Amino acid sequence: MRRRDILAAGAATAGTVTLAAPAISQGITEWNMVMPWPRGTPGVGVNAERFAERVTAMSGGRLAINVFAAGELVPPFEGLDAVSSGTADCGHAPPYFWVGKAPVLNYFTGIPFGLTATELAAWFQFGGALELWQEVYDEFNVIPFYAGSSGVQAGGWFREPINSLADLQGLKFRIAGLGGEVMRRLGVNTVLMPPGEIGPAMMSGTVDAVEWIGPWNDRAFGLQRLAKYYYNPSFHEPGPGLEIIVNKDAYAALTPDLQAIVKGAAAATAFETLADFNYHNVVSYLPLLEEEGVQSLPWPDDVIDAMARETWAVLEDLAATDDHTRRTHESFMAFLRQCDRYAASFDTAILQLRHRALEQL
Amino acid sequence: MRRRDILAAGAATAGTVTLAAPAISQGITEWNMVMPWPRGTPGVGVNAERFAERVTAMSGGRLAINVFAAGELVPPFEGLDAVSSGTADCGHAPPYFWVGKAPVLNYFTGIPFGLTATELAAWFQFGGALELWQEVYDEFNVIPFYAGSSGVQAGGWFREPINSLADLQGLKFRIAGLGGEVMRRLGVNTVLMPPGEIGPAMMSGTVDAVEWIGPWNDRAFGLQRLAKYYYNPSFHEPGPGLEIIVNKDAYAALTPDLQAIVKGAAAATAFETLADFNYHNVVSYLPLLEEEGVQSLPWPDDVIDAMARETWAVLEDLAATDDHTRRTHESFMAFLRQCDRYAASFDTAILQLRHRALEQL
Repeated sequence: MRRRDILAAGAATAGTVTLAAPAISQGITEWNMVMPWPRGTPGVGVNAERFAERVTAMSGGRLAINVFAAGELVPPFEGLDAVSSGTADCGHAPPYFWVGKAPVLNYFTGIPFGLTATELAAWFQFGGALELWQEVYDEFNVIPFYAGSSGVQAGGWFREPINSLADLQGLKFRIAGLGGEVMRRLGVNTVLMPPGEIGPAMMSGTVDAVEWIGPWNDRAFGLQRLAKYYYNPSFHEPGPGLEIIVNKDAYAALTPDLQAIVKGAAAATAFETLADFNYHNVVSYLPLLEEEGVQSLPWPDDVIDAMARETWAVLEDLAATDDHTRRTHESFMAFLRQCDRYAASFDTAILQLRHRALEQL
Repeated sequence: MRRRDILAAGAATAGTVTLAAPAISQGITEWNMVMPWPRGTPGVGVNAERFAERVTAMSGGRLAINVFAAGELVPPFEGLDAVSSGTADCGHAPPYFWVGKAPVLNYFTGIPFGLTATELAAWFQFGGALELWQEVYDEFNVIPFYAGSSGVQAGGWFREPINSLADLQGLKFRIAGLGGEVMRRLGVNTVLMPPGEIGPAMMSGTVDAVEWIGPWNDRAFGLQRLAKYYYNPSFHEPGPGLEIIVNKDAYAALTPDLQAIVKGAAAATAFETLADFNYHNVVSYLPLLEEEGVQSLPWPDDVIDAMARETWAVLEDLAATDDHTRRTHESFMAFLRQCDRYAASFDTAILQLRHRALEQL
């Protein structure tokens, strides 16, 4: 008999397999999960909902997660507070939503000219970053898990072409995160607004340019109908990370098998989110160019060099926040420098080699 | 009370949460898992073992997976047979190990100048490839899951530099997969041998060159002490996929929660495997150059063009195998072409942009 189905009680007595408590007590736990996205938002919202469904399915309903979309339980920008206080048991978001509370969280989302999605995952899982991240969330009574990335983001939609640094002066540009601060230092009139206002602001002329996510989500917003100059890629979001955060007490109250399920489901979500964004960004990109008259353009060299100069200055200011931020900065930059050297012969090189080969077809 | 712990029996009666059968019957299932790697092999073996540990932990021991390393239950190249017949319940391997049985499996591992690791994941999860893959494994009574990738592989270690196509003539080169067939058509004397013989064959002069995986695993084999010319990247393995295969009857015998655990653990393994290889390849690369006198070199242009020409010819022959292989070929190539166009403005562009920015530091 190659597969043995035996009674748990017998196995536990025999000591070969120890059953976790809930399989014996058959307790059921319900968790509330908050996310800052409207229900069904492609990429981010859908994958957060899949996480909840996966945990519920893997636990046979013993840990049932109820998802609350933006505003349903708490406002979008109060997710960390909610999970910290126990108003919610877990949440999904990009860590940079909470940089007002801890500037170091910029590094765990990713920085301008920083790590790509896979490199960020590598830094978290094997480069010591999860431990640095846990240090900052300890004070919020929260456990973080990396939950994937939207991949390389798009640079933004501009009504007029950007031919040099001078064209950025005074431009009203909706841009998020550290990239906004870099652009501000370059003379851009940066503004931030909730996702739902991006399209309307562009349509009404309140702004001259906007950046959102990438071809998939940008196209769903109809941005290609409001501006035709699409600058790519985003210098400031090369692979921004998402998080699943869990209240420490809620996690501690779980039996070891349910803890393993939460942890495993977060890793599965990271994988599926990466694949989801990659697939849909790729298939959404060419129709923009071929059917909707969009021009995808690279940034001018003087703009790149100025963005880089201000990025390193902004990061120096950020790293000076406190000792923990400095240590995180050093860890990030040390791995980034190695990734850059490695990519030249591997990640970048294979894409160039492949492009040359495909030109034969 | 924001978290309710109630008796399962009560919940099931109330109809709010339906408990899966095993939490009630408390049955325990043991699975045997085969892998073609020695126990503890970095990257491949360790992540296969982590899959087994994760399933056991997530199920609270209700599904306990025992791992059998290379040769312990069946020989390394008999993994599919073992899972197909039920000698093993599941297995870990690269799908191209079984191309002798079904040539189409080359596409599910990846082809020369093909999809990178993340792109391959995207094609599997959202591009219809899992369904094409399932079609071929149906006849083996097996269910496949994508289990991650070793990332962009290294091109190979050569005792002498390759300055042009002429230098490849008659060269004795250990190279695996479709890349071996391409090289054979270019006049290379290709040989295949088990991993354990790669180092000895290079040392004894039986071969002039070898390719294995990437900086992490190559360095562990000590290949940098046997040859100094390191050609990168591998033209033929841009992001080769790994699989976890499960016997259909064994899977069908599981309750839905344990099925969800197996599926979720495979996705978590895919994520961790990608991160593991990325991290360790990156940190293993620079010491080769800076401490061990290795020269990492690009392939000469005429070699690239010849490799590409023969690759497209080999793939035409492969696609002609049968209707299913043709459909798989068309699906792969259609997504590959879109990925190439997308990468030019996103994946490749961000790495080049970042490199330019880092040069300021």
